[in-house]
Amino acid sequence: MEYRIEKDTMGQVKVPANKLWGAQTERSRNNFKIGAPASMPLEIVYGFAYLKKAAAYTNTELGVLAEEKRDLIAQVCDEILEGKHDDQFPLVIWQTGSGTQSNMNVNEVIANRAHQLAGKTVGEGEKTIQPNDDVNKSQSSNDTFPTGMHIAIYKKIVDMTIPGVIKLRNTLNDKAIAFKDCVKIGRTHLMDATPLTLGQEFSGYVSQLDHGLKALENTLPHLAELALGGTAVGTGLNTPKGYDVLVAQYIAKFTNLPFVTAENKFEALAAHDALVETHGALKQLAVSLNKIANDIRMMASGPRSGIGEIIIPANEPGSSIMPGKVNPTQCEALTMVCAQVMGNDVAVTVGGTQGHYELNVFKPVMAANVLHSAQLLGDACTSFEEHCAIGIEPNHSVIKQLLNNSLMLVTALNTKIGYYKAAEIANTAHKNGTTLKEEAIKLGYVTAEEYDAWVKPENMVGGLK
Amino acid sequence: MEYRIEKDTMGQVKVPANKLWGAQTERSRNNFKIGAPASMPLEIVYGFAYLKKAAAYTNTELGVLAEEKRDLIAQVCDEILEGKHDDQFPLVIWQTGSGTQSNMNVNEVIANRAHQLAGKTVGEGEKTIQPNDDVNKSQSSNDTFPTGMHIAIYKKIVDMTIPGVIKLRNTLNDKAIAFKDCVKIGRTHLMDATPLTLGQEFSGYVSQLDHGLKALENTLPHLAELALGGTAVGTGLNTPKGYDVLVAQYIAKFTNLPFVTAENKFEALAAHDALVETHGALKQLAVSLNKIANDIRMMASGPRSGIGEIIIPANEPGSSIMPGKVNPTQCEALTMVCAQVMGNDVAVTVGGTQGHYELNVFKPVMAANVLHSAQLLGDACTSFEEHCAIGIEPNHSVIKQLLNNSLMLVTALNTKIGYYKAAEIANTAHKNGTTLKEEAIKLGYVTAEEYDAWVKPENMVGGLK
Amino acid sequence: MEYRIEKDTMGQVKVPANKLWGAQTERSRNNFKIGAPASMPLEIVYGFAYLKKAAAYTNTELGVLAEEKRDLIAQVCDEILEGKHDDQFPLVIWQTGSGTQSNMNVNEVIANRAHQLAGKTVGEGEKTIQPNDDVNKSQSSNDTFPTGMHIAIYKKIVDMTIPGVIKLRNTLNDKAIAFKDCVKIGRTHLMDATPLTLGQEFSGYVSQLDHGLKALENTLPHLAELALGGTAVGTGLNTPKGYDVLVAQYIAKFTNLPFVTAENKFEALAAHDALVETHGALKQLAVSLNKIANDIRMMASGPRSGIGEIIIPANEPGSSIMPGKVNPTQCEALTMVCAQVMGNDVAVTVGGTQGHYELNVFKPVMAANVLHSAQLLGDACTSFEEHCAIGIEPNHSVIKQLLNNSLMLVTALNTKIGYYKAAEIANTAHKNGTTLKEEAIKLGYVTAEEYDAWVKPENMVGGLK
Amino acid sequence: MEYRIEKDTMGQVKVPANKLWGAQTERSRNNFKIGAPASMPLEIVYGFAYLKKAAAYTNTELGVLAEEKRDLIAQVCDEILEGKHDDQFPLVIWQTGSGTQSNMNVNEVIANRAHQLAGKTVGEGEKTIQPNDDVNKSQSSNDTFPTGMHIAIYKKIVDMTIPGVIKLRNTLNDKAIAFKDCVKIGRTHLMDATPLTLGQEFSGYVSQLDHGLKALENTLPHLAELALGGTAVGTGLNTPKGYDVLVAQYIAKFTNLPFVTAENKFEALAAHDALVETHGALKQLAVSLNKIANDIRMMASGPRSGIGEIIIPANEPGSSIMPGKVNPTQCEALTMVCAQVMGNDVAVTVGGTQGHYELNVFKPVMAANVLHSAQLLGDACTSFEEHCAIGIEPNHSVIKQLLNNSLMLVTALNTKIGYYKAAEIANTAHKNGTTLKEEAIKLGYVTAEEYDAWVKPENMVGGLK
Repeated sequence: MEYRIEKDTMGQVKVPANKLWGAQTERSRNNFKIGAPASMPLEIVYGFAYLKKAAAYTNTELGVLAEEKRDLIAQVCDEILEGKHDDQFPLVIWQTGSGTQSNMNVNEVIANRAHQLAGKTVGEGEKTIQPNDDVNKSQSSNDTFPTGMHIAIYKKIVDMTIPGVIKLRNTLNDKAIAFKDCVKIGRTHLMDATPLTLGQEFSGYVSQLDHGLKALENTLPHLAELALGGTAVGTGLNTPKGYDVLVAQYIAKFTNLPFVTAENKFEALAAHDALVETHGALKQLAVSLNKIANDIRMMASGPRSGIGEIIIPANEPGSSIMPGKVNPTQCEALTMVCAQVMGNDVAVTVGGTQGHYELNVFKPVMAANVLHSAQLLGDACTSFEEHCAIGIEPNHSVIKQLLNNSLMLVTALNTKIGYYKAAEIANTAHKNGTTLKEEAIKLGYVTAEEYDAWVKPENMVGGLK
Repeated sequence: MEYRIEKDTMGQVKVPANKLWGAQTERSRNNFKIGAPASMPLEIVYGFAYLKKAAAYTNTELGVLAEEKRDLIAQVCDEILEGKHDDQFPLVIWQTGSGTQSNMNVNEVIANRAHQLAGKTVGEGEKTIQPNDDVNKSQSSNDTFPTGMHIAIYKKIVDMTIPGVIKLRNTLNDKAIAFKDCVKIGRTHLMDATPLTLGQEFSGYVSQLDHGLKALENTLPHLAELALGGTAVGTGLNTPKGYDVLVAQYIAKFTNLPFVTAENKFEALAAHDALVETHGALKQLAVSLNKIANDIRMMASGPRSGIGEIIIPANEPGSSIMPGKVNPTQCEALTMVCAQVMGNDVAVTVGGTQGHYELNVFKPVMAANVLHSAQLLGDACTSFEEHCAIGIEPNHSVIKQLLNNSLMLVTALNTKIGYYKAAEIANTAHKNGTTLKEEAIKLGYVTAEEYDAWVKPENMVGGLK
Repeated sequence: MEYRIEKDTMGQVKVPANKLWGAQTERSRNNFKIGAPASMPLEIVYGFAYLKKAAAYTNTELGVLAEEKRDLIAQVCDEILEGKHDDQFPLVIWQTGSGTQSNMNVNEVIANRAHQLAGKTVGEGEKTIQPNDDVNKSQSSNDTFPTGMHIAIYKKIVDMTIPGVIKLRNTLNDKAIAFKDCVKIGRTHLMDATPLTLGQEFSGYVSQLDHGLKALENTLPHLAELALGGTAVGTGLNTPKGYDVLVAQYIAKFTNLPFVTAENKFEALAAHDALVETHGALKQLAVSLNKIANDIRMMASGPRSGIGEIIIPANEPGSSIMPGKVNPTQCEALTMVCAQVMGNDVAVTVGGTQGHYELNVFKPVMAANVLHSAQLLGDACTSFEEHCAIGIEPNHSVIKQLLNNSLMLVTALNTKIGYYKAAEIANTAHKNGTTLKEEAIKLGYVTAEEYDAWVKPENMVGGLK
Repeated sequence: MEYRIEKDTMGQVKVPANKLWGAQTERSRNNFKIGAPASMPLEIVYGFAYLKKAAAYTNTELGVLAEEKRDLIAQVCDEILEGKHDDQFPLVIWQTGSGTQSNMNVNEVIANRAHQLAGKTVGEGEKTIQPNDDVNKSQSSNDTFPTGMHIAIYKKIVDMTIPGVIKLRNTLNDKAIAFKDCVKIGRTHLMDATPLTLGQEFSGYVSQLDHGLKALENTLPHLAELALGGTAVGTGLNTPKGYDVLVAQYIAKFTNLPFVTAENKFEALAAHDALVETHGALKQLAVSLNKIANDIRMMASGPRSGIGEIIIPANEPGSSIMPGKVNPTQCEALTMVCAQVMGNDVAVTVGGTQGHYELNVFKPVMAANVLHSAQLLGDACTSFEEHCAIGIEPNHSVIKQLLNNSLMLVTALNTKIGYYKAAEIANTAHKNGTTLKEEAIKLGYVTAEEYDAWVKPENMVGGLK
């Protein structure tokens, strides 16, 4: 492979000739061979592209950067956002905990690419744009990385997570309406209980997701706070007056998202409670989705020796050995995602506890886990909606049979003959393998006419509205 | 021990003669000998007392319970809330997952105590009040237990957690103001960095707690939703019309807290995402407090061979073998609490995922963990404030010495001579064990006058305001 | 309340006159009002009693403590172990992270009680035994607390956890044998699959617990290593030669457990990986038990509209509103315990990461969580065995019906007619609601005789033995 | 793009013409667009290659597969293991929880590639080898996937994790020996304590890793148990007699690892406690490494205003704004890995709890997390060793200065003048800012000669050996 020489404050480094990155990126590549290469999420690189462009505009507006430099920087940032340089960011999550090296990776790529755009050859001549003095002007890794990760995560949540959850929520709501008259047996403790409608069951799922979405949205204002302008330790050293507010405005403008400068930059550098907060809401959604997916696969179990109350789409052969088997695979994918999100929550939490003094140095692991969860939840909801939820249909004959068998219809008699006599009827029918009606009459507690008038499943589901 | 006979739908049970509980409580005592006795939190019992009283009032108002019965029930509930019957609730967390047996424990105690209040002897004669038909009227364990736990947790959070956190937040804020001119070295990656004030550091802690409080408050509306009125499966079977709304109003009135009936009762029984949500915010506070306590103990470390920038109160001898040792014990208690809260979060999360069909049967373990965390955080913040934070003072001589030694003051020269030359000065001074000023002049990059004018720590801390 | 004056190196403290503890205990009581009082587990106090006695014997044998003092100390330790002084240990978990104050609590109680045993009055005259110089001789909190917690946990595991798990394991094994010929439908993905016997299912549970017990036993050697003899920082300062080995021998003798002195005392003070290791195995058991309990409640679900393949004991009325309901309450208690253990694991893990330099100061929270889990798992297994597992019986008629309905018996034809044709048979029968045999013949792939000869559920369960 | 038609039991599917996979792989690709493509770890694919080859050999040896088919299958497996078909496995973790589709992916690729090797064109003519009937003969996804994941994880642990940990352990041990005479101040509670040697500190780290390695090795026998031979539900349906034992022997031979057939196949399919167990040990290592890395970065903190007792290699510029800054970046990468491993542990645990009946359907998420942790820990230990541990050197002048300043040397006087007088000396010196010796003499407790004779740091570190 051919190399060129790049240098930084520690000296010279050989860099692959066809790459735009510089000395510090190359050092990091060599020093951190941990896990898969290039694991630092590209979303964070794009977050950097937004902020570097915003910083350039702000620096120029505040009189500390020439317009030509601004325009070159902005042009490269736009190219990065178009995905043209995805292969120029080879670093891993497991680097310095401030993400310094990824900040420098971006600085170096912008500087070298700007050199090209200025008609020069990378590695030759004075750099048109300096990575530290120009691209990184009025910035530090310590405020850029958290800014980049907030941008990346905020975008991921509004672009992927929320739309995916809403899509599923809406389909479940359609089902709740469609199934509103389908009376079925209820189950508590997995045991037969009093009836409800299938629509009511689904309305519970919708309510879970509505609450989850609200919880997620509640976390966005904290996430909208940007560290940029705090520089090294939160004091804003080496930034022009007004920089922090203005640069956040530019970022808001470029991303079309409601970013603001953090009220307290010390918090914004030293703690990433915003990520803990946001991931807490993602974890809550995982909890909800796990419940929903479990219910659906239990209700769909069978086809002949399970519950079998609903039918879900058959998307693929279910077994490599058992012919004709169809499995609730979307439920499985979704619940596996939920398990991952629960695990990621602990990684984010542990990272969040470990800020020391002016800096939390678990930034990359925290950001990567939040992005991972946000992506997986959004994708999994979409997949679940498209390949499972949309096709759910009641198996009316099974539902009816299981409902009519149930001993728990006896509860309708509580207010007529009291809990104790009702219990006696149920216990006797259970022991004898008979029906409630038979035993109710035989015990002399009700007449056949009373039984028929009082024990109507369809009258047992509407107490609330 | 003397016994009397109580019975339920399964038959007779011997109950200690001097106890007010009945057959089902006694069965549970015998069937669940798991962990310490009476581990079910009393706060939940009190939550039940509020709701049983409210249910009685509602039932009477809606015409399904006699006034005399209402008044007897209410009177016992008031006695329970005064702590007069704390020893009548012997059950454990590790019982049925719906908390049915604790609901029955309350029903039985109310019924038997009402019998006494009516001038009768427990165990003799027809019960004046029936535990199932009267005390539990228009209710099920499935809607009472979640209602009781929401009441208990909401109260705990507004009575203990939030006041404790605010108390600490205010003291830290006082310190932030008091220390606003105390310039000290900053540290990132645990390494010397550019200066800031001690007050700025503390303002970051205040900001963390402010965000944490806001996050906690965001969860309260979900927690304010009460399941009561859903009865067995969420349909409200066996409740009079209007019951759910009215009973929530009574609970709000009796507790003076903004409780409302849950919009969707199916969610309120089958999922406890509200607890997952609230505990998520408690965990976030734990993350913040862990950071704060860690910083304080590191800054207080020494007295001679640590950092030693602040002095914390000496509350007790620190060592049974090393005389004269004083330790950051409040930091240790607080961070141990944080570890517990992080663990509790997983217990709550796991419990939250496991609702099946119409009922989540991890109610007691979820509620107990949320209460535990809420209590510990409130207490620990109060303890930390009273025995540590209030007494924190800067060690000015150490702060000054460490500040003036720092090589990172060179950052002030970045905007004057560029990052590369500044780095050269710092590296040379580091290598030679000299001062920045010496090397800056020797390298010819600045004059002595320029150095003194440009490198002023007190000018390096105010970029932001 | 009446008080007496006690003092320590920081001065005088008023202590309740009727209590045996001294100044440092009282300071801790006042300084750490966090959570329930006296939360420090008594098991740890007992662990201290063993080690204080052992230290006294060792000190005397090595010539640094008078025999009379040894005997007084030993006598009080024996009283503590008999439970006579349980109310003398009022401290909480949330104290100093080294447990210093609980060590001093024990030292003070022993010294004051020894004073009484010597015929003196507590608070009057020179102490017969000095808490620091005599009771704590050759010790530090830093090596006593970890020693006490290892003793407490080791005993809990061999006295409670392992016997509880073995008891359940043996009963499940009895069931595996009893049910070995009960052929039933298998289920994978919750869906109908090829048959197995109920005994085979239970043998899987037994195998899980056998592996879990082995994993737990693997952790005991680490737990058997005692820190005692390391004193303040692991160097053994102020201990007589040979002390560490001898004191461990005395502890082994007094407890009848295979304790040894830790090979490396620095590890034994600064890290509590032994607790992380042991709790990891407890968590594994929780995972196994969760699976087992879930299976049992699903198989027992019904009675009429669930799976209903097994019958579990009815121990209590299941519902306060639905008469006649019986629930899998032991499964619920057990799985709630499992959720708690999974949470505790994170608390132990987080605590374990936080050792700094020569000392981990999360000792009390780590020890308390391991003890909690060990107790809960032991108790819950015992409860589950006694009130559920022992009474499990197959519901043969349901099992037979569900087995014969199954389409997955078609798998037996794979090796005869190939996977594709077998799948066609199953799919057709599923679509038409017919039997496999009908469709197999109609499709012309097998004759009736072949079908009967090849598709025998009882022949499908024995491939392995 | 060009396509060809493949089919399975559900019908026809268009597959990219240049790919070797078949219908079921393509269905999965379309149905599970969750997260990054091809996230199913290649290590698992390689695990499948071993087992498919072993199954072919076993099937032939037991007379159910023609030799020519065996050889074709084996030849493709070898190609897969050589990495020649890495781009033929496009599926994601988030598919069916049994991994069925990845099993079919391997079956399909082997069948199509075998067709090529037999001189035919993929998609044309009768398949030379059938994916279900030949490649998957005597197998099910339900036993192949867990076998593949055990092979993958076992290999990863012995090839990457253990060597990485040992490499670091050995270097730390070298340091422990090299620093054995370097007396320094000890620290407990982050506060000054009695002295020890730097070598003793490092010996504690070595002991942690030794215990961690032992714990990890303890888990290998469970991991060595292979599910293969259990087929669909653990009964071994459709396997020839002796298959399970023999196929494990072939796998052991091909991998050169001590694999055996699982004693109980029901456990091996329905539970993955082996993964929970192994990851528990990985988590323990993460706990240990976190402690070690934290200590090292605290001791290396400075260079001028921290602890500064050791010097670690400077591998890269530490700051994009603060010139000359060097950070403990390897410590940061390592502790971020530890945070991830702690999170992964919860994902594995949650997955482990969720087996239902005959199958755990969280296989892919469990396996992926264990592999992730095993890789990260191995890599991070190697990186930490090469770029940090190997270069650690004491900063003797700082160590000496901090040691001599310490007030805790007073502990040496405990056995001479008693704890109380020693405490008085330390407290007075602390208050007056003087030395211990001055105050000891002034208080009249010792003479200067006694002080010098008794208070020798180098005599305070050797109590134990």
